[in-house]
Formats: sequence, structure tokens, C-alpha cells
Amino acid sequence: MDQGFTLWFTGLSGAGKSTLANLAAAEFRSRGHRVEILDGDEVRTNLSKGLGFSKEDRDTNIRRIGYVCRLLSRNGVIAISAAISPYRAIRDEVRGAHDRFFEVFMKCPLETLVERDVKGLYKKALKGEIPSFTGVSDPYEEPLSPELVIDSSIEQPDLSLRKLLANLEERNYIYRNGAGRGVGR
Amino acid sequence: MDQGFTLWFTGLSGAGKSTLANLAAAEFRSRGHRVEILDGDEVRTNLSKGLGFSKEDRDTNIRRIGYVCRLLSRNGVIAISAAISPYRAIRDEVRGAHDRFFEVFMKCPLETLVERDVKGLYKKALKGEIPSFTGVSDPYEEPLSPELVIDSSIEQPDLSLRKLLANLEERNYIYRNGAGRGVGR
Repeated sequence: MDQGFTLWFTGLSGAGKSTLANLAAAEFRSRGHRVEILDGDEVRTNLSKGLGFSKEDRDTNIRRIGYVCRLLSRNGVIAISAAISPYRAIRDEVRGAHDRFFEVFMKCPLETLVERDVKGLYKKALKGEIPSFTGVSDPYEEPLSPELVIDSSIEQPDLSLRKLLANLEERNYIYRNGAGRGVGR
Repeated sequence: MDQGFTLWFTGLSGAGKSTLANLAAAEFRSRGHRVEILDGDEVRTNLSKGLGFSKEDRDTNIRRIGYVCRLLSRNGVIAISAAISPYRAIRDEVRGAHDRFFEVFMKCPLETLVERDVKGLYKKALKGEIPSFTGVSDPYEEPLSPELVIDSSIEQPDLSLRKLLANLEERNYIYRNGAGRGVGR
């Protein structure tokens, strides 16, 4: 039976979670894996409408993503979460419910994120226009022992992807290129 | 690629949804399918804590179950919902989001359910001690064209199971007995 696993990205807004998640998902699919990406926005629409950004609501949101990832991954799917997931205890709770859980910490200094500010959110958050903004006015707890740390302030996504794939191959979590069930399985 | 589908039970409390869902799940597994059952209670704990039994909250709960069923079924899993799901429009909305959706209406006259009252809920509901109880003080909208209707007031579960399996085999939704990937796949 093909085994799935959960690939859990965590990090501040703009740190590159979705970018790397999407690159990885495309590569997994091309190697014949089933893949689902649960990003923060999609989940907030489908599972967590009405929840806000208090600690309690954030925890509930992350628990729900974790629950769905567990259902998918135990059925052979690579379930990818790309939500900020700022609280360590909840990430570890989700990890504890999994057999195979791979956490990627997208580490990027706040200054870099503020400087880039691709969506213009940091500027607003720093002016106080967005309340409870993770990293500015709301806490972010770094993982203590994630499976992989990516510093997207100094590394291009294609190199990060290669590191991630090498690490997953080593654990036999993914088919090696060309050794899987092939494209279009 | 193995295709999944969503098997959606609907009907009043006590009509036999969970019983038939569990029998079917065991049979699917023995034929080599991947199966997940999303019953009302499990989902209310993991996806819908805090929701009540207003129409709006019920709709939200069912939409969430539908979303998870869709994620699972499009990844080869037989996703089974055994929640009451009283409102037709929401069931049909969930159906519309699926490629393969099989609805089983567990039809059982209210009088029979009240008479049996396995969990003692109908007695309480009729006394007004449980507000918004489907079939007593809250509406239940029967499906207009479900794939299968089971009258559990006159039919034993093993016969219902055989009918269900025959119907699913005919559609090639499940492996035929002995023709699948076998036990323990």
C-alpha cells in the first residue's frame, strides 16, 4: 500500500510557504503521487468560516487542517499544509496524531519580509491597520526541531526544492525521479 | 488509478445510517478499498466544534463533511458520510461538487423510530427536552432521487447491505468480491 505523509510548512506570511508547497506538489504529482494542498485561505473558506485570529481560533483552524491532513495522508495522499500555524504546541499536537509528518520551517527574517512586502500586508500591520498580524502584533513560535529549515531570504526556491526532495527521498517518503509509478499514473 | 467515491447516507436519527455505513465499510475494506467514515459525532468534534443545530449551523457542518469527502474521494478513497444531513439543498450542493456521489436514503417511519427509540432520544424530543430534533421539532427533507432507498423498518441490515453492494458493483464503484486487490492490500 502506498503510504502518504503530511508535509507541514510553517513560517511567517511571505516567507515562501505557498511557493515551495506548490513547487513540491507539482514535482510529487509528476512522480506519480497523489497530492492535496491545504492552504490557509482555502481552509478558512471551507472548514473555518467564522473563525478569527485569536489564539483559540487559530488553534482550532490548525487542528482542523491537521485532522484533514491525517485523513488524507493515512490514505496514501501527500497532504501539504501551507498555513502560518504560529503556535508550536498545536503543530506538535498535529504531529503527534501522525505516523509520518515532515515539518518545514520557512525561516526568513522579519526585516526581509517587511522590505519585500509582496502583498503590502506588513506595511499595514506595522501601522496597526491589521490587528493580530503574526510576527508584528501576534506571536510566532519557531519550531524547535523541524525536519527541514529553509532560509528563503538567502536561498532561491529551486534550491530549496532540491533540498526538500533529497530529504524526502532519503526517508523513502517519495518515489525517486524515474523510479516511481511515472507521470500520469 | 483507483477512483474513489462518496457514499452519502441520509435519514433520521435511529434509521440505521451508521449501522449500514459500518457494515459497508468493513466489506469495502475486505475487498481492498481504502475507506473513511465521517460520522456526525466525529465531525462535530474535529471540524465543527462550537456549531449548534440551527439551519445555518447544520448547513455549515454538512458542507464541511462534504468538502472532506470530496478531498478523500478524489484521491481514491471511499468516503462515507453518516450524518443526518436534513436539508436537500445542501446535500445536492455537496453532490454537485462530486464526480461520483451515491446517496442512500435510510427511510424509516417516524412511528417506528419513536417505538424503537434505541437511545431514548425521541422520548426526550417529544417531551420538548431536546430542541431542534430532526423529524420531531426540526425539518427533514427527503431526497427526491437518491441512488438507493432502504426502508429499515422492514428490512434487515444484511439484506440492505447486499442491495447496496449489488448497486455499487453495477456502477463499477467497488471491486466485485474476489476480483479486487484482495484482503490486506
